[in-house]
Amino acid sequence: MPPRSNRRITLARRPDGIPGPDDFALREVPMPEPAEGQVLIENLYLSLDAAIRSWMKPDCSYFPPIALGEPVRSTTLGRVVASRHPDFKPGDHGVAYACGGWEDYSVVAGESLHRVEKRPGFPLHYHLSIFSAMGLTPYFGLLDIGQPKPGETALISAAAGAVGSIAGQIARIKGCRVVGIAGSDEKCRMLVEELGFDAAFNYKGKNTEQLSRDIAELCPRGVDIFFDNVGGEILDAALLNLAMFARVAFCGAIGDYTRSGPIPGPYHYWQILARCATVRGFLTLYYKDQFPAAIDEMEGWLKSGQLKFSEDISVGLESTIPSFAKLFTGENRGKLLVRLQQDRA
Amino acid sequence: MPPRSNRRITLARRPDGIPGPDDFALREVPMPEPAEGQVLIENLYLSLDAAIRSWMKPDCSYFPPIALGEPVRSTTLGRVVASRHPDFKPGDHGVAYACGGWEDYSVVAGESLHRVEKRPGFPLHYHLSIFSAMGLTPYFGLLDIGQPKPGETALISAAAGAVGSIAGQIARIKGCRVVGIAGSDEKCRMLVEELGFDAAFNYKGKNTEQLSRDIAELCPRGVDIFFDNVGGEILDAALLNLAMFARVAFCGAIGDYTRSGPIPGPYHYWQILARCATVRGFLTLYYKDQFPAAIDEMEGWLKSGQLKFSEDISVGLESTIPSFAKLFTGENRGKLLVRLQQDRA
Repeated sequence: MPPRSNRRITLARRPDGIPGPDDFALREVPMPEPAEGQVLIENLYLSLDAAIRSWMKPDCSYFPPIALGEPVRSTTLGRVVASRHPDFKPGDHGVAYACGGWEDYSVVAGESLHRVEKRPGFPLHYHLSIFSAMGLTPYFGLLDIGQPKPGETALISAAAGAVGSIAGQIARIKGCRVVGIAGSDEKCRMLVEELGFDAAFNYKGKNTEQLSRDIAELCPRGVDIFFDNVGGEILDAALLNLAMFARVAFCGAIGDYTRSGPIPGPYHYWQILARCATVRGFLTLYYKDQFPAAIDEMEGWLKSGQLKFSEDISVGLESTIPSFAKLFTGENRGKLLVRLQQDRA
Repeated sequence: MPPRSNRRITLARRPDGIPGPDDFALREVPMPEPAEGQVLIENLYLSLDAAIRSWMKPDCSYFPPIALGEPVRSTTLGRVVASRHPDFKPGDHGVAYACGGWEDYSVVAGESLHRVEKRPGFPLHYHLSIFSAMGLTPYFGLLDIGQPKPGETALISAAAGAVGSIAGQIARIKGCRVVGIAGSDEKCRMLVEELGFDAAFNYKGKNTEQLSRDIAELCPRGVDIFFDNVGGEILDAALLNLAMFARVAFCGAIGDYTRSGPIPGPYHYWQILARCATVRGFLTLYYKDQFPAAIDEMEGWLKSGQLKFSEDISVGLESTIPSFAKLFTGENRGKLLVRLQQDRA
């Protein structure tokens, strides 16, 4: 039997910049009950993603903003505790993509819960990391939007992050020259020595012109694929170095999520025309039908050692807020998860 | 025999804003002689295109900027006078795409000259208007990038202009709901009453928010295809109204060509991600192999009356500069050409 109450972290006010403890409240509320068509899940893991920060903005445009006083919306991995939906029974596992919360228990619509099962040889919680958005976002961004061809040059921003490091490795598997951009010399060394990037450079303290020079030097034939996680000056510097018919996978703009007020687009937007380039935005959820095949392919790369990744797992609901802040300071070392309950699958 | 000298309009200084007479000089120079592989053409018509203004900027990035003292680079339709290239003989006609000049005679590389012949029932100079960039740019932008499907909504900026009016008519032929944006109520009436647009509105004096409201009202299911000729606030307003999986054909940014200094990209660039949209820049020249089939299809639409267009033809090299300025004030009424010599084809 689940307990009678549910602990949750609610949004107390709209953060200014990097979210801190005062922006949230830890509350104890009565255990929710699923209505017809809904499922009650016990959250085993929370996935901490940069997108959550954008949902906290009052003008978030692609999802409803998180309301003040409501639990912070999150992707979670849960075990079904009670079900009023025909597809689920207690004990099943599912991922609530962008519809769970920072809380011990969540009620979700049955059709929004994505059933998962433990894959032999891999822990269940990989369904929140490499077999989830963290792995699938670079998979579809790099392959479907990037359309890599052997010998082309792929440039990856936030390359030491969870998504960027996978994007770079997939580009390398597809035979591209891969160049990473990261925030410290140590991260750059790791990209080249451990993940097989051809080159990497540190963006810290550089303006658009300096960034553009670094890219030009490491991508002498231009950038065929730019996997953009960051936006801002790094995007501008990449646009200045596009090869003809380049593809830009617009996956995020983490540099903008903590800014407020009108944010100008790239100053070198014109390069999209000049290089006959394609910029495509994407939300990984729309590839849902292709998830199983994608996960199969990634499983193969993991087993052969061609694909590596790391997780940064904190323990307990209380660890969520300090752990989330690491996303924006660059302190995390791998995909950020919070473990609330041990996997029992 | 051609005369011994050649009249040309050279770039005297880099224009600030709309180009005027003091930015140019009319010079008489010795008749050039073609070197091996080159062809001397007598220019019959000059094509006045907004892109020429961007080539006058010192930082033009996709083509070499026009050097001071050099003739203004232009697409021209010419008759071969002397040839040192095996593919051409005197009397042949060809279009020098972006490699002729504002001058009576031009020397061009044979491989850069695109052979044209008079199509029965159409004047030769249509090879600088409807059968050239003016027709082919909207053709490929709307069809290849826009990928129109019946019932979708296409929004066209600079819709009363040469390129925009063709884009809108092709969208209509393909079964789209077509909404135009133009700079006067009279132009808007023309779009609806004469060219079959479903709706049109006047952008003059409106900010992004007001433009966005107008678009939302006329495109209640969102914008599936945005054919962008203009950039700036109109682009931002369109981005705010994109339907999911929208396509933006980035064909020009005429609003920016007369601005100097760093020009911010669209403030709502983020919408590209939020709507899983595709922004693709293109230069029509890269579709060269597909020109003949495209022209055949457009010929059919012209003959059936489904496609209408107009030309604004001035006469004499001296008329070039005042005529060119009309592009940026919106005074032109159709595709701007300058006639230097009567077609004899």
